[in-house]
Amino acid sequence: MHFTSEQRRENGSLERDFTLGEIPGILWTPTSSPAPLILLGHPGGLRTMYPRLAGRARHCMANGFAAATIELPGSGDRPRSTDAEQARADLHRALAAGQPVDEIVDRLVIPLVEKAVPEWQSTLDALLSLPEISGPVGYSGGVIAIGIRLAVVEPRIVAAGLFAGSFVPRAMFDEARRVTIPLHVLLQWDDEGNDRQLALDLFDAFDSREKTLQANMGGHAGVPKFAADDAGRFFVRHLK
Amino acid sequence: MHFTSEQRRENGSLERDFTLGEIPGILWTPTSSPAPLILLGHPGGLRTMYPRLAGRARHCMANGFAAATIELPGSGDRPRSTDAEQARADLHRALAAGQPVDEIVDRLVIPLVEKAVPEWQSTLDALLSLPEISGPVGYSGGVIAIGIRLAVVEPRIVAAGLFAGSFVPRAMFDEARRVTIPLHVLLQWDDEGNDRQLALDLFDAFDSREKTLQANMGGHAGVPKFAADDAGRFFVRHLK
Repeated sequence: MHFTSEQRRENGSLERDFTLGEIPGILWTPTSSPAPLILLGHPGGLRTMYPRLAGRARHCMANGFAAATIELPGSGDRPRSTDAEQARADLHRALAAGQPVDEIVDRLVIPLVEKAVPEWQSTLDALLSLPEISGPVGYSGGVIAIGIRLAVVEPRIVAAGLFAGSFVPRAMFDEARRVTIPLHVLLQWDDEGNDRQLALDLFDAFDSREKTLQANMGGHAGVPKFAADDAGRFFVRHLK
Repeated sequence: MHFTSEQRRENGSLERDFTLGEIPGILWTPTSSPAPLILLGHPGGLRTMYPRLAGRARHCMANGFAAATIELPGSGDRPRSTDAEQARADLHRALAAGQPVDEIVDRLVIPLVEKAVPEWQSTLDALLSLPEISGPVGYSGGVIAIGIRLAVVEPRIVAAGLFAGSFVPRAMFDEARRVTIPLHVLLQWDDEGNDRQLALDLFDAFDSREKTLQANMGGHAGVPKFAADDAGRFFVRHLK
């Protein structure tokens, strides 16, 4: 892990860009350390996503957590995957034509999960070796399929706040049944790009003894402020 | 409204039993007054429900709200309704036999709503004439059909925290479509006595621009502490 830039904020928190091999990422650390860590999931494209990610990181730091994110395989400045680009184009075409998307979602999301999850785990190795990061670790956000796989295979992740706003391969339902860590699932009820029934079925599938579904109005990007606060309190309950 | 007993707590809050005509009720007021008011809905039986109602009232007062509740028609010490008793027995029999309950729910809940809602409104008239109650007013809890009707017909109620844990006549869906006040709906995901799909359909039907569904694990009476806190914050956002 190489830090490539560093910005200290007036409140003493630190934002650092890093690379881990070819993977770019960002780490935010609060003044008080060592801090528990929240991994910020997102749909890919660090540069485009930066304002929202930085906002979520500030929210984490206000609760005393460090936050980190990495670029997804095939997104941002990382090499494109021809198969993934093809699947993405097919998905947009199928959605526009009102055609079934299950097979395309499999082609798009399953390879992404296969590649991204080991990268998140290597990132976690590197982050937890830093003196300013103590754990425990939470995963927050989308891509929900990545969050599910991480919750199953990565014992260092003890709680997950998942955003039910992305496509989930049907095969991931079997993995969802193996998730037992506490979950806080956000669902935008009228999310134009999301299958509500699938999100509800997925929530039902999780085997966690503590799981909360919070559904709000406002479309894909319209998660209300109070919902972010509730998600923050979920992590405070489980990481502190 | 006649107060029949009074208990002052060490923290200065006051609990008073009252009668309004033949209807018994309880009013809790915090030290700081005048206070906004939360009406505490429940399934009937003030004496049995007292410990839970008193807990909810303490929670309200901790947020600076007064709280009040009244006995439902046909419950507790109030005169029984033969039709309601018959419907209740039929409902238990039908549930035990796995038979459809729609017609029975209509017979049980619609007359209850017709009788209870004007009583809640008279209670509101009396409570809002007290110097220690200022409004605005929220409705919290079940019976959800009563909460829906109140939200439609009673403009003094500006926000409702509804508990999706009771039977709802299909006819109430048309009323649900006319509800526009902010809503916070609690659903116990594995509530043995509740139709989850009906609760989700009902949430979908509400016309409120701000509506939140929060589903948790734990059975009918197992609403987690953090869910009660979230509901409390909902009322703080809308009544203060």
